[in-house]
Amino acid sequence: MIAEIIAIGSEMLTPYRQDTNSLFLTERLNGLGISVSFKTVVGDNLDHLISAARTAIARADIAIFMGGLGPTQDDLTREAVAAALGVELKRDNTMVTEMYKRFAERRLKMPENNAQQADVLQGAVILPNPKGTAPGQWLETTYADKPRIIALLPGPPHELETMWDIECAPRLRDKVPPAAIAGRVLKVAMMGESAVDLRAAPIYKKYPNVETTVLAGQGQVEFHLNATAATKGEAQAEVDRLAGELEDEFDDAVFSAQGESLEEIVSYYMQMRNAKLAVAESCTGGMVAERLTSVPGSSRWFLGGAVVYSNDLKTLFADVPPLMIEAHGAVSKEVAVALAENIRELCGADIGVGVTGIAGPGGGTEEKPVGLVYVAVTNGHKHEVVQRRFFGDRERVRRWTSQLALDLVRRMLM
Amino acid sequence: MIAEIIAIGSEMLTPYRQDTNSLFLTERLNGLGISVSFKTVVGDNLDHLISAARTAIARADIAIFMGGLGPTQDDLTREAVAAALGVELKRDNTMVTEMYKRFAERRLKMPENNAQQADVLQGAVILPNPKGTAPGQWLETTYADKPRIIALLPGPPHELETMWDIECAPRLRDKVPPAAIAGRVLKVAMMGESAVDLRAAPIYKKYPNVETTVLAGQGQVEFHLNATAATKGEAQAEVDRLAGELEDEFDDAVFSAQGESLEEIVSYYMQMRNAKLAVAESCTGGMVAERLTSVPGSSRWFLGGAVVYSNDLKTLFADVPPLMIEAHGAVSKEVAVALAENIRELCGADIGVGVTGIAGPGGGTEEKPVGLVYVAVTNGHKHEVVQRRFFGDRERVRRWTSQLALDLVRRMLM
Repeated sequence: MIAEIIAIGSEMLTPYRQDTNSLFLTERLNGLGISVSFKTVVGDNLDHLISAARTAIARADIAIFMGGLGPTQDDLTREAVAAALGVELKRDNTMVTEMYKRFAERRLKMPENNAQQADVLQGAVILPNPKGTAPGQWLETTYADKPRIIALLPGPPHELETMWDIECAPRLRDKVPPAAIAGRVLKVAMMGESAVDLRAAPIYKKYPNVETTVLAGQGQVEFHLNATAATKGEAQAEVDRLAGELEDEFDDAVFSAQGESLEEIVSYYMQMRNAKLAVAESCTGGMVAERLTSVPGSSRWFLGGAVVYSNDLKTLFADVPPLMIEAHGAVSKEVAVALAENIRELCGADIGVGVTGIAGPGGGTEEKPVGLVYVAVTNGHKHEVVQRRFFGDRERVRRWTSQLALDLVRRMLM
Repeated sequence: MIAEIIAIGSEMLTPYRQDTNSLFLTERLNGLGISVSFKTVVGDNLDHLISAARTAIARADIAIFMGGLGPTQDDLTREAVAAALGVELKRDNTMVTEMYKRFAERRLKMPENNAQQADVLQGAVILPNPKGTAPGQWLETTYADKPRIIALLPGPPHELETMWDIECAPRLRDKVPPAAIAGRVLKVAMMGESAVDLRAAPIYKKYPNVETTVLAGQGQVEFHLNATAATKGEAQAEVDRLAGELEDEFDDAVFSAQGESLEEIVSYYMQMRNAKLAVAESCTGGMVAERLTSVPGSSRWFLGGAVVYSNDLKTLFADVPPLMIEAHGAVSKEVAVALAENIRELCGADIGVGVTGIAGPGGGTEEKPVGLVYVAVTNGHKHEVVQRRFFGDRERVRRWTSQLALDLVRRMLM
């Protein structure tokens, strides 16, 4: 079965933007036992779009078009696919009425060109878009006597991902032979890629039937393990055996055994322990709090805290004595611990986190260089404080530091 | 002139790897006045490669193939392009002799399949590879009576980049009219894509020589304007004329006229006014502070603030009276204003920001639904408070809310 993914949008033909949706779709297609054979990127140009659509429909059993479904004159995907297939577009009046209603509810007048979002390929099913306005389309047809599946999906990732999982995956699963494929994602925190791979390679090389990909970035290393076998159970057993050996090797540095994010794992532990968290962060500037609160329901265990960027605010919001800052500097073990302990106390939390450091590019000294950070975590009985020196730009230092903070919270809760 | 870039390699059809060479090539091609019309990714499969090569050669004046030039059985690019063009591959014996010599010098026996690297498309020029072993090829030919330029380049980025700049760019420069290209990026805050496009389209359509791409997301709409003309000055003048008309139309909703981010613009204004900022945020959970502190040097104007996720912390860190929360609810205009005014006062800042809302997915009620937010900004003399209802998931609501906060700060400083 040949699958092609077509990403539509002139911005992806500039040096600045790339299609990333195809990575998500590839992962999902692989999960159904379908490989991707072609990926195409084409701009918002009708002739080019028709050419790309014709090529895809001629060579691929499944053609997935992403983007170009919005309300503007640049949104030409419907028109191009109809032309390539040689079918008509029909305006769905029920949908138009609903769109008018939705605008009216918000006391807005609907721009007229919005109605083109209701133009449907002859024979296609309309796919609702719970995360946005542009609906998708699903068409099962034949082209040159061969069966063809054609999907039109919106470009914004969260819209596309939701629509794929709710609408497309179940439809496609009925069309392909049940595949015996199994996968796991293991994640290791706060280690470098080469250090991890040096220890991991002798293990995963013993499992030639498991495809192992090692990905590193932002303070974590991920193992993507995939196996195909005669049955799903066999494939899963093979993957689980390798995952088990890797978990033994990396022990408590493995924070996720099923692909969860570090935020999700912290949230899981916090709820399990029925504990409350507060943070006082300097160089991460809110990133620790932002990551924690990105998890739905975090208000059940996250109280809040302070972004103590200036020294005065370290004193005002986290009772750090000015003399301590004078004696040790704002970037010091002592200040990190004081931030953690005092914010815990003040907020009435069970766990307190304190972060201080030099994110750069400016502000470094011989003694305290850019990338030096201190992170402290306390539960009121004992505290842990870690000094690290991270390399790279401001964004990287902040990201690794927030990762360290979350990982220390996880370890304290374990 | 239509250009297509074809990236070859099965690893780029997995969920984990992406072609990035095309970004480099696009930047270089744009610099010669050539836009990229199509990008294709195809695996190491002869049939698929021939299909991709046929499609490219049929529709593109310039087809650049990247990868698949090595010595292994997976390296099929030469063979596929020859088949697509209907020409022979001729083994270059001088090159084979040189390869044998190079191996002999290192006292190694050359693997036999290495010789395929000397297979040259009929009529092609061999491009030396100073950074690796696989040579490239450059072919100027005709296909279906149309002139065609075909380049075969190695996949490793440093090999490809060097070969492009030394061998290909000078050859291509001779083939295209001397072009001068100019670009600008304008950004508009807090408006929807269709509302913006409805007003913008009549303007940019008056400038058919300027390629206009409208990109929307995360609370902003971007206009990417690019023009090609006889001279750089002419191209720039055309782009600037259109940019000027768009700035007139959208007036102070345009926050960036040179592609700067909203964070950078706020930073610029804060420094210009020599003012200090503090924030008290609830539903954004640190995102406003995190975005502000992502700008290098933000410690010069950002003091910090509080993430007041729980009601108690709204009182503790921002003096919001519990009775006010009881009377109006934590998500209310009154609380947003109190957060802004009190955090400004407490921190000794010039500007205070208060954010409260319901990010979802839980926590919404009939009266106060998910997506309802209040953002207040004050300078001590006057305040501005805005109520908005954002749609979409938790991440989207938080992102738009932080965008609104930053935009209100910008407007207060203007």
